[in-house]
Amino acid sequence: MRHGFIFNPTFVALAGNKVKVFSGIFEVSTGGEVDSVNITNQITETVRRSNVESGIANVLCLHTTCGLYINEDESRLKQDVQKTLGRLVPKGGGYGHDSIDDNAHAHLRTILLSSTLTLPVSGGRPVLGTWQKVFCAEFDGPRARTIRVQVLGE
Amino acid sequence: MRHGFIFNPTFVALAGNKVKVFSGIFEVSTGGEVDSVNITNQITETVRRSNVESGIANVLCLHTTCGLYINEDESRLKQDVQKTLGRLVPKGGGYGHDSIDDNAHAHLRTILLSSTLTLPVSGGRPVLGTWQKVFCAEFDGPRARTIRVQVLGE
Amino acid sequence: MRHGFIFNPTFVALAGNKVKVFSGIFEVSTGGEVDSVNITNQITETVRRSNVESGIANVLCLHTTCGLYINEDESRLKQDVQKTLGRLVPKGGGYGHDSIDDNAHAHLRTILLSSTLTLPVSGGRPVLGTWQKVFCAEFDGPRARTIRVQVLGE
Repeated sequence: MRHGFIFNPTFVALAGNKVKVFSGIFEVSTGGEVDSVNITNQITETVRRSNVESGIANVLCLHTTCGLYINEDESRLKQDVQKTLGRLVPKGGGYGHDSIDDNAHAHLRTILLSSTLTLPVSGGRPVLGTWQKVFCAEFDGPRARTIRVQVLGE
Repeated sequence: MRHGFIFNPTFVALAGNKVKVFSGIFEVSTGGEVDSVNITNQITETVRRSNVESGIANVLCLHTTCGLYINEDESRLKQDVQKTLGRLVPKGGGYGHDSIDDNAHAHLRTILLSSTLTLPVSGGRPVLGTWQKVFCAEFDGPRARTIRVQVLGE
Repeated sequence: MRHGFIFNPTFVALAGNKVKVFSGIFEVSTGGEVDSVNITNQITETVRRSNVESGIANVLCLHTTCGLYINEDESRLKQDVQKTLGRLVPKGGGYGHDSIDDNAHAHLRTILLSSTLTLPVSGGRPVLGTWQKVFCAEFDGPRARTIRVQVLGE
């Protein structure tokens, strides 16, 4: 199989300045036992307040039973995400951790997603594709969840 | 169980300089409905052009139906990756999103991988282990896909 | 469904200084064919030695048959992680790569986790939630595994 690479890099930022490091924390209230909440606006707002023009934004979900993913904000797809993770890692699937906390499935689904992701920042905004949004995926809610955004750049 | 940690950090870079931020964008043409394309050379070339000697490179796949992963470039393994994701998230598996777009499986497989990853940069090159390569995993192709690399450092 | 966002960003760091880039490498001996080893202390120690007060720490596992994840350090949960990945991607599941190396399952489980993750650094320490720890998940051990931590900031 051959792949026709079109290698056409566009250099959108080149700077030599002092580094800025900035942290913002926000909370999100999830709306059910499982839920997928679009947190893109909160990330964008945190980046805006950082005054970082070019750099990166690191997003960390500070919990072990909800995670992060990037995809489209379409209501049926959000349900498909939760149903698919529920099928792959069913609740009460004979997990050892359930003898303590009854939420092993929520930990395991979080591990299949991830707890942290990093985005480019350009023009003072996080960069995402046309259909990409960042979601907080709740697996043991409803709860108030804390997200931290670390912005680094110039 | 005991773990014999050998804690022997090697300090390969220590700098105090102005920060550089650099962005490169390249396209990759995927070769089938599903495909795994090694994009390591394109990432390496983007880092080289950034003139960043030490720092990080953030890679973002700007789509919702193809993702990124790091592993070995071995042809049968690349097929195993696609077959395994196809088994875990079969096409036409009764997803709600299929009533709109018929590609829910491609979104869901992308979510199980990831859309963004970050690598160290050292000596003007992205750092990877001996057998590690970065792949763009197509789940709804063939298409031209856009990858963005943000390089930050000095 | 409505989500009650509490948008209350806390700005914990704002700096304008020269950037520091620092790399530390450490080894971890895994204790079985599969194993989950908490490497949080090693990451914390590497960040401490970097003298970076605010920034990010990029963690890279330099192998293709063991990966990284963030979750709770509870012994039964660690077993649940390995059992769940073993159920989703069984050893000897008819993989093409097994004709070469007999460890396709270990590559595939690594791909379902990830090989690299990035954490915020604040107050000279990596930031994690109360119950979050970083794990190296072995799928083809026991072996000595190498982890690289790149610290960037000021």
